[in-house]
Amino acid sequence: MTDAPYELYYWPTIQGRGEFVRLALEEAGAPYVDVARGPGGMAAMMKIIKGEGTHGVPPFAPPFLVDGALVIAQTANVLLHLAPRHGLVPDDTAARLAANQLMLTIADLVNEVHDTHHPVATGLYYEDQKPEAARRSQGFTTERLPKFFGYFEAILERAKGRHRHLIGTSLSYVDLAMFQVLSGLDYAFPRAMKHLAPSLPRLLALQTGVAARPRLAAYLASERRLPFNENGIFRHYPELDLPTKH
Amino acid sequence: MTDAPYELYYWPTIQGRGEFVRLALEEAGAPYVDVARGPGGMAAMMKIIKGEGTHGVPPFAPPFLVDGALVIAQTANVLLHLAPRHGLVPDDTAARLAANQLMLTIADLVNEVHDTHHPVATGLYYEDQKPEAARRSQGFTTERLPKFFGYFEAILERAKGRHRHLIGTSLSYVDLAMFQVLSGLDYAFPRAMKHLAPSLPRLLALQTGVAARPRLAAYLASERRLPFNENGIFRHYPELDLPTKH
Repeated sequence: MTDAPYELYYWPTIQGRGEFVRLALEEAGAPYVDVARGPGGMAAMMKIIKGEGTHGVPPFAPPFLVDGALVIAQTANVLLHLAPRHGLVPDDTAARLAANQLMLTIADLVNEVHDTHHPVATGLYYEDQKPEAARRSQGFTTERLPKFFGYFEAILERAKGRHRHLIGTSLSYVDLAMFQVLSGLDYAFPRAMKHLAPSLPRLLALQTGVAARPRLAAYLASERRLPFNENGIFRHYPELDLPTKH
Repeated sequence: MTDAPYELYYWPTIQGRGEFVRLALEEAGAPYVDVARGPGGMAAMMKIIKGEGTHGVPPFAPPFLVDGALVIAQTANVLLHLAPRHGLVPDDTAARLAANQLMLTIADLVNEVHDTHHPVATGLYYEDQKPEAARRSQGFTTERLPKFFGYFEAILERAKGRHRHLIGTSLSYVDLAMFQVLSGLDYAFPRAMKHLAPSLPRLLALQTGVAARPRLAAYLASERRLPFNENGIFRHYPELDLPTKH
């Protein structure tokens, strides 16, 4: 970590995967510039993606973080770098491996959320793949989502009331990421989430707890928090959600 | 690392994501047991997935590695743990972050390969999603694959002839993973790979170089190396490949 603020680079109009990094920076109170949302920011971002401005390995895609001479891409990798520097993960090796494991499992879930509206091709519009999206979403809301949430809920259950955190006994970046996924799914699939809610008491308590943290609450109420929308990963297409009378 | 052999757990009949871990263990000459391929192994694997036998966070899915008291899941996370212990990644922080970044980008590519034959639902057979698979594969072979390979080829090109390695100046686990992806795609999409070959001289040299390493060559010729097949991630369905006269 240098004294200069971190530079975060991500598409300026969506929360997307960049939001997982933003939440960590905001909870840490770490100074950062959200570069692509400022003047000339998109040009600066594309320049780094083309490999200009780094001697190391350029990013394949945003989000990426510039920390001094380091250019770090891949969401889980950025958080692996940031979390120990800001007390967002326990000190011991076992807990750090477990945190990374859970973060990568959350990333897998996020990929599956993306594919509910883009099952055929990232390069096509949702409107060009609606029947396929409906099929994929049906499997997602009735099989994959219960499976993922059952897994995460069981991890909190194993903690046996000691705490409401996925790793260790205080807040970690994994909790922030879980909050984001739950919030995104509330937006995208409100009926499926209502249907699943009774089986997720601990995850919902985690979600409420994260939202109430002073720095997070201030961030979520600010203009820095972009609204969910239909260009992001979590999109609300009612026709993809569970039917009304499930 | 303990003196006991590592225990690798993965589905016993496919290379899949477990192969990325196997290649690292084989190149390192590290003693390991491929548990699910032995008697009682599948039962032992399912037990750990259910959370029995670990006080930590159980795996969401295989592959996972047991190293003494540690149970480590998520392919990139297992390699993050193994590589520094066996000289398969440089010592410095910047190189390790870059290696993890590239490994996660390779994992993204592997997910996209999986989705060429399973675009609608993991829970259904390929035969139940053939038209969607054909659409997805068309975008994969003509857009996504050239984009991913263009990115990795450019990283080798930036190294300016100094070496044939993606990270640092000697073999890393990222090179092993790239070898595996190239080999899997040769099997699954031979026509697309032949079409792309002229634009990938450095990646193909890397692939040849890895296959010729003594330990790897011995492993690849052994019965421990499972053949590619149509239950794995890299499946050869000729109807999904580029047309004959592309």
